[in-house]
Amino acid sequence: MTNHAINTTGARLRRWIALAALALGSAAASHGAVPEAPAAVQVPGYFRMHLGSFDVTALYDGHVDLDAALLGGAARPTIDAALAGAFQGRAMPLQTAVNGYLVRTGTHLILVDTGTAKLFGDHLGFLLKNLQAAGHAPADIDTVLLTHLHPDHAGGLLTADGRMAFPNAQVFVPKADADYWLSRAAAAAAPQDKQALFGMARDAVAPYLAAGRLTLFAPGAALREGVRALPAPGHTPGHTAYLFSSATQRLLVWGDIVHNAAVQFPHPEVSIEFDADQARAIATRRALLGEAASNRWWVAGAHLPFPGLGRIGSGSDGGYRWVPVEYGPVHERP
Amino acid sequence: MTNHAINTTGARLRRWIALAALALGSAAASHGAVPEAPAAVQVPGYFRMHLGSFDVTALYDGHVDLDAALLGGAARPTIDAALAGAFQGRAMPLQTAVNGYLVRTGTHLILVDTGTAKLFGDHLGFLLKNLQAAGHAPADIDTVLLTHLHPDHAGGLLTADGRMAFPNAQVFVPKADADYWLSRAAAAAAPQDKQALFGMARDAVAPYLAAGRLTLFAPGAALREGVRALPAPGHTPGHTAYLFSSATQRLLVWGDIVHNAAVQFPHPEVSIEFDADQARAIATRRALLGEAASNRWWVAGAHLPFPGLGRIGSGSDGGYRWVPVEYGPVHERP
Repeated sequence: MTNHAINTTGARLRRWIALAALALGSAAASHGAVPEAPAAVQVPGYFRMHLGSFDVTALYDGHVDLDAALLGGAARPTIDAALAGAFQGRAMPLQTAVNGYLVRTGTHLILVDTGTAKLFGDHLGFLLKNLQAAGHAPADIDTVLLTHLHPDHAGGLLTADGRMAFPNAQVFVPKADADYWLSRAAAAAAPQDKQALFGMARDAVAPYLAAGRLTLFAPGAALREGVRALPAPGHTPGHTAYLFSSATQRLLVWGDIVHNAAVQFPHPEVSIEFDADQARAIATRRALLGEAASNRWWVAGAHLPFPGLGRIGSGSDGGYRWVPVEYGPVHERP
Repeated sequence: MTNHAINTTGARLRRWIALAALALGSAAASHGAVPEAPAAVQVPGYFRMHLGSFDVTALYDGHVDLDAALLGGAARPTIDAALAGAFQGRAMPLQTAVNGYLVRTGTHLILVDTGTAKLFGDHLGFLLKNLQAAGHAPADIDTVLLTHLHPDHAGGLLTADGRMAFPNAQVFVPKADADYWLSRAAAAAAPQDKQALFGMARDAVAPYLAAGRLTLFAPGAALREGVRALPAPGHTPGHTAYLFSSATQRLLVWGDIVHNAAVQFPHPEVSIEFDADQARAIATRRALLGEAASNRWWVAGAHLPFPGLGRIGSGSDGGYRWVPVEYGPVHERP
C-alpha cells in the first residue's frame, strides 16, 4: 500500500463526510415517536470470571470524582501527558471506581472490601445491590477481608441503620491498620480534616467487635485455604493485599495500590495524596507490580476501572501496562 | 525512594509470600459447605452510554475463536509481540467478540448489525437476548443498518424459524454489498469454501425484501437524521461505517475495521484473511483510524472487546492505541 493510495482513501473519505452532511438537509425526519424506552439504565455492576476452581465476582460500589492535583511524585507535564493519553485531564474530575471482590472457594464465600455505603454520598454504596444482582445474599458471606480501614473499603460493613450488613461473616482486619484507625490517641494526634476517618472506621467494625466477629491478624497469618495476606504498607500502616490461589492461577486483590490506571501503571513513582507514607507506598507499588507482572498474576484493584480485573504487562522505562480482562461467557461448573 | 529501599521492599514481600505459603499448611479448612451459588453466570451482555441526546447500547452476540495465522501484513515476530503484550498468542485461539449497537435518537431506534443467530454455533446468537435484557423488544426497532452482509452481521435478521426478527424495521444495506452478496453470478464465481456465505446473505434479507422492507443505498445517501453512511470498502465491496452525531459528540460504528485490537491498533497495516481486498482494507483502516483519532470520535467496533466502545489515541511509529470506555452510571434523562 503506497502513501498515495492511503492519502487518496483519506481524501475520498473526507469527501463522503462532507457529502453526507449536505444530503442530510433533505432527509425526511417525519418518523413517529420512538416507543418509550427503559431509559438509560446501565447494566448491573458485577462481572464474573473463573480462577482455577474458584469463582471471582467483581462488585461495583460506585465512583468518586478525584482532582488530578492529588497526584504527585512526577513532573506535572509527565502526569498530564499520561492523563491526556486516556482522554482524562485537569479540566474534569477523574472518574475513580470503587470495587469490591467476592471469591467463592470450595469452602468459603469471601468478600474483599465492602464499599462505602452512603458515607461519601449517593454516587456510591451500590455494592450490596450489585451483590444481589449477581445472585448472592449478604448472609451467604462467611468471610470479609479488609485491605485497610478507609471508609470506601470498610463503610459497607454497616447497613443504613447501623446493623451488620454481613451478619454471618467473620471480619478480618490487618492488625497494624486496626492499631492505627481504632486508636483514640492516633485520632487525637491526626490533622483535623482526617479525624472523621477514625470515627468511620470505629463505627464500621463496632457491631462485629461486639459480636465476637472481628479478627485482627498479623502479617503472615493463614486466614483461609487458598488465601495469603501480603503486607502492602504505605497507603495506610496495615494496608494488605490478598493473594488467592487455585490450581495454577493466582489473583492478587491489591486494594489501593493504584488509584489512577492511566498515570500510575506507566509511572509507579506517582503517588496520591491519600497515601499516608508516600515513599513506602511507592516501594510497595513497585514491588507488587513487579511480582504481578513477572508471575502473570491476575490483579483486582479497588480503584481500577470496573471490573478492575486484568493482568500487568511491562511498559517502557520501567513502567507497566494494564491489560483488562475481556468480557465473555462464564460456563457453569460441571 | 532509593533503589535500595525498593529492593528491600521487594525482598520483604517475597519473604511474606513464602511465609504465608508455609502457614497455610496449618490453616483449618473445616468450614461448612458454601450455600449453593447462582453458579458462575456472567452479567448480561449490554452496556449503555450517552452520546449527546442519543442513547447508545452495545449488545453482545457472543464470540468466535480465531486463529492468529489469519493475521498477515506484518512480520510474524511483530504480530507475536503485539499478541503477547495482551496475554494472547498462537497457542490459544483469539477470543473475538461479535457486537451490535443500538442507537436511540429522538425519532428512531436504530440497530447497527444484528449478530450471527445460530449460523456459526452456540457461542453466538445472544444479541436478541441481550437486547431484551437491556429493556427493548425487537419490534421496537424501526431501522436496521448493516455494515456489510457477512453472516455475523446479517444472520441475526432472522429468527430460528426463518421469520423477520425485527418485523417493524426497514433494513438498509449498502448497494455495493448487495450487488455482490446477493448476486448468483458472484456466488458461482467465488471459491467453493466461500459459497455458503452468499446463501446466508440471501436468506437473511429474503423476508425483508418480500415485505418491501429492504433499502439498498448508494454512498452519500441520507438515511436517518443524525446518521451518515461512510463507505469503508476493502473488508467487503460495500463495507460501510455509520457516523452518529448528536450535539458536539460523534460515534463511528465501524463494523469490521479491526478484528484484533491488540495487533491492529498499533499495526494498522495488519489485515485479516477475511478482508476481501486487503490493500483497500488497509487504506480504509488507516483513513478511519486517522479521522477518529484526530476528531476524538467515539468508536464502536463489531469485533473489539465488548462493549467495543472507546476512543483512539495516537501511538508510536504511526500506530494507534485503543482507550476503552469506562463503566459507570448512566443517568436517566430529565
